[in-house]
Amino acid sequence: MKGFGSDNHSGVHPEIMKYMLIANLEHAPSYGTDVWSEQLTEKIRQDFGSRTEIFLVFNGTAANVLAMKACVKSFQSILCSDVSHLNVDECGAPEFFTGAKLIPIRSFHGKISVSEMEKAMIRRGDQHFSQVSAVSITQPTEMGTCYSLEEIQEISQWCKSKGLYLHIDGARLANAAYYLKTDMATVCRGADIVSIGGTKNGLMMGEAILVLNPSLAIDFKYIRKQGAQLPSKTRFIAASFLTYLSNDLWQRIAEHSCTMAQTLHKNLKEIPGLEITDPCQSNAVFVKIPKDLIKDLKKHFFFYVWNEETYQCRLMTSWDTQIEEIENFSDLLKKKLGAKSETSSHPLS
Amino acid sequence: MKGFGSDNHSGVHPEIMKYMLIANLEHAPSYGTDVWSEQLTEKIRQDFGSRTEIFLVFNGTAANVLAMKACVKSFQSILCSDVSHLNVDECGAPEFFTGAKLIPIRSFHGKISVSEMEKAMIRRGDQHFSQVSAVSITQPTEMGTCYSLEEIQEISQWCKSKGLYLHIDGARLANAAYYLKTDMATVCRGADIVSIGGTKNGLMMGEAILVLNPSLAIDFKYIRKQGAQLPSKTRFIAASFLTYLSNDLWQRIAEHSCTMAQTLHKNLKEIPGLEITDPCQSNAVFVKIPKDLIKDLKKHFFFYVWNEETYQCRLMTSWDTQIEEIENFSDLLKKKLGAKSETSSHPLS
Amino acid sequence: MKGFGSDNHSGVHPEIMKYMLIANLEHAPSYGTDVWSEQLTEKIRQDFGSRTEIFLVFNGTAANVLAMKACVKSFQSILCSDVSHLNVDECGAPEFFTGAKLIPIRSFHGKISVSEMEKAMIRRGDQHFSQVSAVSITQPTEMGTCYSLEEIQEISQWCKSKGLYLHIDGARLANAAYYLKTDMATVCRGADIVSIGGTKNGLMMGEAILVLNPSLAIDFKYIRKQGAQLPSKTRFIAASFLTYLSNDLWQRIAEHSCTMAQTLHKNLKEIPGLEITDPCQSNAVFVKIPKDLIKDLKKHFFFYVWNEETYQCRLMTSWDTQIEEIENFSDLLKKKLGAKSETSSHPLS
Amino acid sequence: MKGFGSDNHSGVHPEIMKYMLIANLEHAPSYGTDVWSEQLTEKIRQDFGSRTEIFLVFNGTAANVLAMKACVKSFQSILCSDVSHLNVDECGAPEFFTGAKLIPIRSFHGKISVSEMEKAMIRRGDQHFSQVSAVSITQPTEMGTCYSLEEIQEISQWCKSKGLYLHIDGARLANAAYYLKTDMATVCRGADIVSIGGTKNGLMMGEAILVLNPSLAIDFKYIRKQGAQLPSKTRFIAASFLTYLSNDLWQRIAEHSCTMAQTLHKNLKEIPGLEITDPCQSNAVFVKIPKDLIKDLKKHFFFYVWNEETYQCRLMTSWDTQIEEIENFSDLLKKKLGAKSETSSHPLS
Repeated sequence: MKGFGSDNHSGVHPEIMKYMLIANLEHAPSYGTDVWSEQLTEKIRQDFGSRTEIFLVFNGTAANVLAMKACVKSFQSILCSDVSHLNVDECGAPEFFTGAKLIPIRSFHGKISVSEMEKAMIRRGDQHFSQVSAVSITQPTEMGTCYSLEEIQEISQWCKSKGLYLHIDGARLANAAYYLKTDMATVCRGADIVSIGGTKNGLMMGEAILVLNPSLAIDFKYIRKQGAQLPSKTRFIAASFLTYLSNDLWQRIAEHSCTMAQTLHKNLKEIPGLEITDPCQSNAVFVKIPKDLIKDLKKHFFFYVWNEETYQCRLMTSWDTQIEEIENFSDLLKKKLGAKSETSSHPLS
Repeated sequence: MKGFGSDNHSGVHPEIMKYMLIANLEHAPSYGTDVWSEQLTEKIRQDFGSRTEIFLVFNGTAANVLAMKACVKSFQSILCSDVSHLNVDECGAPEFFTGAKLIPIRSFHGKISVSEMEKAMIRRGDQHFSQVSAVSITQPTEMGTCYSLEEIQEISQWCKSKGLYLHIDGARLANAAYYLKTDMATVCRGADIVSIGGTKNGLMMGEAILVLNPSLAIDFKYIRKQGAQLPSKTRFIAASFLTYLSNDLWQRIAEHSCTMAQTLHKNLKEIPGLEITDPCQSNAVFVKIPKDLIKDLKKHFFFYVWNEETYQCRLMTSWDTQIEEIENFSDLLKKKLGAKSETSSHPLS
Repeated sequence: MKGFGSDNHSGVHPEIMKYMLIANLEHAPSYGTDVWSEQLTEKIRQDFGSRTEIFLVFNGTAANVLAMKACVKSFQSILCSDVSHLNVDECGAPEFFTGAKLIPIRSFHGKISVSEMEKAMIRRGDQHFSQVSAVSITQPTEMGTCYSLEEIQEISQWCKSKGLYLHIDGARLANAAYYLKTDMATVCRGADIVSIGGTKNGLMMGEAILVLNPSLAIDFKYIRKQGAQLPSKTRFIAASFLTYLSNDLWQRIAEHSCTMAQTLHKNLKEIPGLEITDPCQSNAVFVKIPKDLIKDLKKHFFFYVWNEETYQCRLMTSWDTQIEEIENFSDLLKKKLGAKSETSSHPLS
Repeated sequence: MKGFGSDNHSGVHPEIMKYMLIANLEHAPSYGTDVWSEQLTEKIRQDFGSRTEIFLVFNGTAANVLAMKACVKSFQSILCSDVSHLNVDECGAPEFFTGAKLIPIRSFHGKISVSEMEKAMIRRGDQHFSQVSAVSITQPTEMGTCYSLEEIQEISQWCKSKGLYLHIDGARLANAAYYLKTDMATVCRGADIVSIGGTKNGLMMGEAILVLNPSLAIDFKYIRKQGAQLPSKTRFIAASFLTYLSNDLWQRIAEHSCTMAQTLHKNLKEIPGLEITDPCQSNAVFVKIPKDLIKDLKKHFFFYVWNEETYQCRLMTSWDTQIEEIENFSDLLKKKLGAKSETSSHPLS
C-alpha cells in the first residue's frame, strides 16, 4: 500500500536503478577506488568547489554522527534543534559516537535561531562545562520548513565568530534547494560539513558526507572506517549518487515531491476541521486530524501520527507520489470530515 | 580488469539482482517491517532454529562489532586470532564500539586453539584485569582454512565451561559449509552469535547477524540503531539474503568459488618455484611468488601481496571467476617462472 | 580568605584528620583490603542494610558517572534536572562514561517532579529513541532545597512502576537528613544507588557509592577500576568515611553548616533590597544582590555569582563557618545597601 | 604486617604529612586555584622547563589513560610493552578512555626496543588499520629495570621520525633518576608527556601529568575534568607534590627504597636455590622461590607471586622499609632453603 508514511517507503528511481545495473556489469575495485567513485568526486568538486571531499556512507544516522565526530572532541558539545533527528531519532548515536553532549535548542517550526543559541553559549573556557564546538541544523527541517539563505548566512557567520563548526543535516537537501529556487551548493554555503541524503530521494541506500572545510577531511577516512561505514562495493552507492546529481535528476525528484506536497497542502487547507500546523516548504505536510478519523484513514493511506497528544500528523510525499493519491486522500478526508460535521451538527437527531 | 583481488570486487549475482528489482516494484514500509524481512526471518528460523533472531546490517565490520557489543561490557575482553579481521582490519572499530579490549591469540593457519586460549584465561575475578567474556573465531579463517566441526565443538564446549560467548565471523560462512560438506546451520552449532556475510558472496551489500542465544537478542535492535546500522529500505538487503539462502544459491555460489580456488591451488602446486603457504579450504590460495614477477603479473591479474616481507600473496576466487582466468593466470605464472628459471640456470649466456 | 564560595574551600575536619593520621601509622594492604575498609563496610551495612555494598571513589563526578554507568547501557537515557551537576557541571562526563543520553527535566527550585518526568517517558520500545533507564535526583539539590521523604517515595514508586533505576546524587546528603530530621539511610530509601559526598562535608577527598540494589553491585568493581577510580591507599578514604559516619560526626557537621545557612538566610531576608530566590533547606542561600555591590563585597568575602544575568548569588556555609563571618557579611551588606539606598533616595543631594 | 607487597602498602612520608597538615590550616579555593598549586607549577617549570604544564590527578591509571587520551584519536593505536601496567593492569581503561587500540610489543625485562616497535609500524595510511600515534614506555619498568638515557633518546628520536608521541609511565620515576644518577627532568627528556607517580613514593594519593609538549596541554583541563579526575581540594595533592619535589625528598625516598632493594637483591643472590630473574635497577627484586616455601614465607612477610606458573615472586621495597626486615626475610629464606635442601639431600633418611 502506498501512502504518505515516508519518502523512504518508496523504491529506487528507475534512472538510478538503471545505472546500478550498469555498474554491475564488471568487476570493480572496492572501498572507493572504483571509477564511479572517481567520477563522483569530480562531479562534486565541479558543483561544490575544488577542495570539497566526499565520503559515502550507508545511512543518514551515520552521515550525521560521523560528521559530528569530525567536529567535536568528547569534552565538547553540539547545539541542535530540540526536534532534530540528531536529538530524538538516533537512539543516542551522536552521544555514543562522539562521547560529547547534545544541547537541544528550542525550535520554532523546526528551526533554531542565533538568539536562542546565544543563550547556550555560556561558561566559555570553564573546565566544568562541556564546551560548545559545533552547530547542527537540518535543512529542510524535520517539520518540513526551510531556513532562508539569509538565515543560514546569519547562523554561519555567528558560528565563525564563535569558532564553531556548522553542520547541515541535509537528508532532503535537494528539496530545500528547490524551495529556495537555487542549487544545493548554494544551500550549503557557509557550512563546514554537510550530510546529503540519498535514501529519501530515490536511492536504494547511501548518504554523502560533503566536507567543505578541508581541515575536517584529514582524518575522515579513518573515522568512517572505525565507524563501520566504509562500503566495500562502493561503486553502487557512487553510481547512484552520480546519477542523482547528473542531468538534473535531483531537481526533478525534488520538484515532483515538493509539488505533490504543495498540492496536498492546498487541498487540506481548504477542508474545514483540519489544522495545518507548519508551513509547507518541502515534501511534508503537518496537519492536525480529528482523532476518531485517523484509524480508518490509515486503512487506506499509511501515515504517521507525529504527536500522540495533539494528533498532529505528518504526510510525506515522494518521487513516485501520484496526483491521484493526493486527490483520493483529500477527497476521503473531506468526505469523512463532512460526515463527521453533519453528525455533530445534528446532535439531537 | 578481473583478477583475484577479492570476492568483493565481483558484482551482484544475477539471481539476487533479479529479486532486488522485484522488491523495487512497490512501496514498502521501512526499518525491517517489510514482507521480505518477514519472510527472511521465517526462512532463518526454519534453517537455524525457531528461536533464532536475525538482524541485517550494512557491512562486515558492523556485523562483527555489533555482535561483540552484545557479548561484552566495556571492562571485559575478547579473545580472537592475531590475524583476524577484528584485530587487524577494522581500524580499531571493535575497541571503539565496545570499549573493551581485544586479546590476540597466536594462530596457526589463521586458526586458534583451546590450548592457546587457555593461556589467556588468567586473573579471573581480578579487578585490575580486563575479564575475558567472549571468543571470536573466523570461519573460514582469513587464511582460507576451516575449523572442523569437531574443532568448533571443542571451542564451543570450552567457552561454555568458562562462561564465555562464542562468536563466529562468517563473512564467507557458506564456503566453510561447502568445504565441510554440510549446511550453514551445522557450521554455526555451538555459537551464540554469528556474522553471516552477504557482500563477499554475491550480494550488493549487507550482512546478517544471527543471534542463536536468545539472551543476546533482547537489546539488539537498540545496539544496531545506535550503531548507525539500521537500514531504512531494509527490503533490498532482506530480498537479497532471502534469495541467497533459497534454492541452494548459497551452495551453488560456494561450490563455484571453492572449486575455482581448488583448481588454482592444484595448478600452482605443480609449478616449481612457488610455495603454497596454507591449505586451500575455501576460496583463497596463499602462495609465495618471487618478488620480481609480482609487478608484471599484476598488470594482467589484480591480487594482493599479503605479506610485504615474504611476498606471500593472496589469490581470491569469486562466484563469477571463470575457469579461463584460472588457466590463463596459471599459464602466465608458469611461463614467467620458466623464463626466470631458464635465465638463472644459464647465468653465463 | 574565608567566605561563602563553597563547602569544598574548607579544609579537613580535625576529627577526620586525626583518624587519617592514625591510619598512617602502619602498613596496610591496598585496593580496599585494609581493615578500615572492612570496618566501613560493616558500619554501612549496619546503617543502610545488610545487603548494601559500598565503593569508595575519589570525587563527586566519579561517584555520579560510575553510578550511572551501572544503571544504563549506551543506548539508554537518564532523566535528570536541567540544573543538575550531572547535566551542567561535569563537562560531559556522564555522556562520556556511559555513552548514553541525558534528558534534562525542567526543575523548580532544583527539584524535578513525576509529572515532568512523565512527559519524557515517550516512545517506549521504539528503536529510534534512546530508552530511559534511570532517574537521577540531587538531594539536597543544587539550589539548596530538599525533596521531602514523601516526594522521594513518589519518585521511587514511579521509577519502580516504569522499570527505571533511581540514583541520588548526595554530595551533601547529610544536610538533607538534618533538614528532614532523619538519618541518611531513611533519606536513601527507595533509591537503587546513591553517591554520598565526603569532600564537601569535611573530608579531604573521597565519595562513597552506596549500592542498595544488589544487582547493580555485581560488576561494580570492574566499572570502578576501568573508570580509573580505584584508590590504592584506600585506607585513608575509608578511615575518613568511618570517622564521618561514626559518633554522629556527619550530623554535627550537617547541623552546623545548615544552622549557619539558616542564620545567614534570616539575616538577609530582613535586609531591604535583596531578593532571596530559593528556600533555605540545607547549607546554601541563593540571593539576588545588586550588581554594583558585588565586586566590592567579594573583596571581603568570596562567593559565586550563580546567574550572570540576574546577579543571583550562591552563598555556601561549611563545617567551619563562624557565626562572626555570618554577622560581618550581613552587616557589610546591610551597610552597603543602606548607603546605596540613601544615595539613590537623595538623587539631588 | 609489613612486607614486600607493594610500595603502596606504606603510609604517607612524615614530611609530606606535615605539609598536608599545614595546607589544612586555612580555607583555600578549589580546583587548582590555590597557592600550593601555583607554587607547584612554578617549581615544576624551574625543574622541567618554563613551558611545562602540570595536571594533578588522583591515581596512576588516570595519569596514564588521560595522558594517552591527549595523544591519540579513537582510530589510532598505542605501542606499549606486553607486560606494561597500561596493557595488563588497568582493566581496559586505556581502550575505554581513548577508544583506541593498544598494540602490545614483546618486551625484554619489561623494556621494549625500537627494532620490535619497527615491526608494528605497518600499513601507514591504510584506512583499515588502526594508525599508531603514540608510544608508552614505563620507567622504571614493571620488572624493575631502567631504560638508559641513551635508550630513551633512541626511542624518542625514532618517535619523532615517525610522528609519534612519546609517553613515559613514571609511577616510580624518581627511582629511575636515582639509578641513572641524574634528576627526573633528564630522565624525561625526549618525552612529550609523563605520568609522575606520587602514591608509590610516599604520598597519600595523587599523580602528576607533566605535559612537556605544549600542544598536548591545550585541551587537557577538559580531558581531566571529563575523565572525573579534577580534584576539588587540590591543595592537598599540590602540597604533597611540592614537598616531595623540594629539599631532595624525592631523591632521599628513591635512594632509600632502591638501596633496600639492592641489599635484598644481594642477599638473595647468595642464597642457593633461588633464581633472580631480572636485574635490580629500582626498588623491586624478582626472584623464583620454590613453590612449597611460599605459603609459609607469606605468613611472615607479605609479597606477590608474579607468575603463577613459574613462582617468580615480586619483592618491593619502600621509603619505610627497614634494613632489619631485609635481613630477617633473607635469613628466613636461607633457613627454609637450607632445611629443604637438607631434607631433599637425604632422601632416604
